[in-house]
Amino acid sequence: MRAVDLIRKKRDAGEHSREEIDYLISAYTRGDIPDYQMAAWLMAAWLRGLNPAEATALTEAMLHSGEVLDLSDVPGKKVDKHSTGGVGDNASLILAPIVAAGGLIVPMISGRGLGHTGGTLDKLEAIPGFNTALTLSEFRRVLGECGMALIGQTAEIAPADKKIYALRDATSTVESIPLICASIMSKKLAEGIDALVLDVKTGSGAFMQKEEDAVRLAQVMVDTAQRMGKKAVALLTDMNQPLGKAAGHSNEVIEAFEVLKGRGPKDLRDLSIELSAWMFFLGERTASVNEGRRLAESLVASGQALETFQECIHLQGGDEHVIDNYSLLPGAKFKTDVTSHEAGYLAATRCMDMGIALAMLEGGRAKKEDRIDHGVSLEFHKRIGDKVEKGEPLVTIHYNSESKLPAAKKLLESSYILADSAPPIPPQIRQIIGGK
Amino acid sequence: MRAVDLIRKKRDAGEHSREEIDYLISAYTRGDIPDYQMAAWLMAAWLRGLNPAEATALTEAMLHSGEVLDLSDVPGKKVDKHSTGGVGDNASLILAPIVAAGGLIVPMISGRGLGHTGGTLDKLEAIPGFNTALTLSEFRRVLGECGMALIGQTAEIAPADKKIYALRDATSTVESIPLICASIMSKKLAEGIDALVLDVKTGSGAFMQKEEDAVRLAQVMVDTAQRMGKKAVALLTDMNQPLGKAAGHSNEVIEAFEVLKGRGPKDLRDLSIELSAWMFFLGERTASVNEGRRLAESLVASGQALETFQECIHLQGGDEHVIDNYSLLPGAKFKTDVTSHEAGYLAATRCMDMGIALAMLEGGRAKKEDRIDHGVSLEFHKRIGDKVEKGEPLVTIHYNSESKLPAAKKLLESSYILADSAPPIPPQIRQIIGGK
Repeated sequence: MRAVDLIRKKRDAGEHSREEIDYLISAYTRGDIPDYQMAAWLMAAWLRGLNPAEATALTEAMLHSGEVLDLSDVPGKKVDKHSTGGVGDNASLILAPIVAAGGLIVPMISGRGLGHTGGTLDKLEAIPGFNTALTLSEFRRVLGECGMALIGQTAEIAPADKKIYALRDATSTVESIPLICASIMSKKLAEGIDALVLDVKTGSGAFMQKEEDAVRLAQVMVDTAQRMGKKAVALLTDMNQPLGKAAGHSNEVIEAFEVLKGRGPKDLRDLSIELSAWMFFLGERTASVNEGRRLAESLVASGQALETFQECIHLQGGDEHVIDNYSLLPGAKFKTDVTSHEAGYLAATRCMDMGIALAMLEGGRAKKEDRIDHGVSLEFHKRIGDKVEKGEPLVTIHYNSESKLPAAKKLLESSYILADSAPPIPPQIRQIIGGK
Repeated sequence: MRAVDLIRKKRDAGEHSREEIDYLISAYTRGDIPDYQMAAWLMAAWLRGLNPAEATALTEAMLHSGEVLDLSDVPGKKVDKHSTGGVGDNASLILAPIVAAGGLIVPMISGRGLGHTGGTLDKLEAIPGFNTALTLSEFRRVLGECGMALIGQTAEIAPADKKIYALRDATSTVESIPLICASIMSKKLAEGIDALVLDVKTGSGAFMQKEEDAVRLAQVMVDTAQRMGKKAVALLTDMNQPLGKAAGHSNEVIEAFEVLKGRGPKDLRDLSIELSAWMFFLGERTASVNEGRRLAESLVASGQALETFQECIHLQGGDEHVIDNYSLLPGAKFKTDVTSHEAGYLAATRCMDMGIALAMLEGGRAKKEDRIDHGVSLEFHKRIGDKVEKGEPLVTIHYNSESKLPAAKKLLESSYILADSAPPIPPQIRQIIGGK
């Protein structure tokens, strides 16, 4: 088999066999196919597409380019959730403890934030001492003890994805649904899970701004998981405004604790319960999603979910006292409000710009190498549909660097779109795809 | 400007500015853009296409990646011809002496053969001593003395093309009309010519087998030359069978001498006169193509063209006695006939296979690094439309290696397609494109 022939085949809209995709990925991973040939193939695949069988073969080839965790010595069904990313999305910090407290195993391997989105790993690292770089044997031990563990990707997991993702980034071949699917699913399925709940975001703060693109991605991911013998569901959820009231690392951790204490913003609480419910159902802990919802609510109400999170923080080296003393988390020295120049109703937000404004304040990364200031955050006061008076605060900026403030503030000012009458409020869950 | 943005633009079917293309080519040539980014761009350009303005900008950028000859110190209009390649196409060896004998300057920088096609340089090197690797100052001197000189591409000419062509070859991005155009035209226009005659082949022995593809390539090349202020014409010519009666290096040199002596095969003679006539017309040596045709014929009849070739051979270090003593050229030890298994009329040939059969006998190259045996050749006895008796020879194979014979012979046997009645004979010149 020769790479040049496989490139020609995809260029001419041909369909690859599983063997061809296996060859392409394994030869590229071991360095037998050079970057320039893979780059040409990626562009051909971007423009010609990959059908469901090809997407599955690609996912499997990337999955098997590295280690696939065998968690059979940890008793219980393993389930996980993946979100395609948004602003203020800290649902993982809530649902993982709920689901682990309910008796399932949540072996969560997460990523870091980039651009307008935050990353679960970065948020956890706001907790003093929290170690996201456990060895795989430590990971296994934490999982066994508290049912959940949260780490970053290791070198052993899907090395093909690491290499291909860097190349896609440099060759404008990122935004392809089958390539995105293979990248996400090869890493998630390396966790050795039985079922996966996908939170596919759509709207002004999502990668897939158009709902039809999000639907296609959701369908391809669910289809790929099912073809690989895993249960999967995708919840298509609204990202036309930030999730919850906080964006920024420390404050999102606090918000997660608040939800686990039975408080916190309703949208974040509802979504976390819903995702947990699906995890219980797919993980065969409950006979229905409804039953899963009731179980999730009871685990929050009883404090068991919070207790599980506390145990996990302790086991991963973090200071579990943060749960009762938020001042142990990094904070911001200054704060200022962005107020409304007019009266009206909040009709829409430029949600991606809000995430970018946070990154400008060093509460996110423009480039992979950037350092993060865990203490800065945005505190949102208005949701779509809310009445806004002239001069009323829309968002409070908690910041540490005066020099970064003006540009971020300006971007936030232009992120709020008001209307004269109350707009329809977007439903949080728009569609459910898969579920078996 | 960033390569990743230019890749995205072409991926999304955007149109590049001249500045963007200049940046892409100059940064790639000096190594600031890596191969993998250029590979992704090439695939995007292959699939999305380049419009005439982009093709011209690409040609100019590649042309100016290296040296453009300034032949202003050699008096006279400079004209050249380029053929897109075929089987037995030795017209350059005939028309260059005719046109130089007629008073124009022919600064011909040629390529080597690859695959089923032969190359002018390789053919010339069949002549003992002939040096195709003149320095540019020697090239200039030979041109000044006899009006023609024939050399290979130097490192100074269009280095971008050398780098890009190697990458296209490895990434299945060769067969793109604007990319082919830029590759050909950047090298030809580096000769510092005033006018260019293009012989664009179409048919079973051409790269562009379909006439509509050949027409598109011809149009893009003529358009590009004209946009760059050069006179240009493309003759769309038939390559459904070999040109002349010989394919193979020594025998094509002999055939060229024969035509210059007023003999030789009619098709080759006619085409060489026609191409010379256009060169005279575009080079403003004659007021019409008709007049150019009469001039070309008279220069053959008087022996002046042959004399010019003799002088050129001498000046480039070759043994000019070959003209009167063909046995000084490398030959073949053995010969065998491929005979017809049936009676009928020759209806068509698989002309590309004939070129490949010659390459199998080492009379061509499968890979760039392959050595050539200048002595082997094919001698064709039948042309399309000819009556063929059962057992009659179709082609004589002149060969040196017994081991290579059977596969080549088999391929030649299947290259002749007979019919019960005489087929229409394809016109040699199908279309004329441009001409101003």
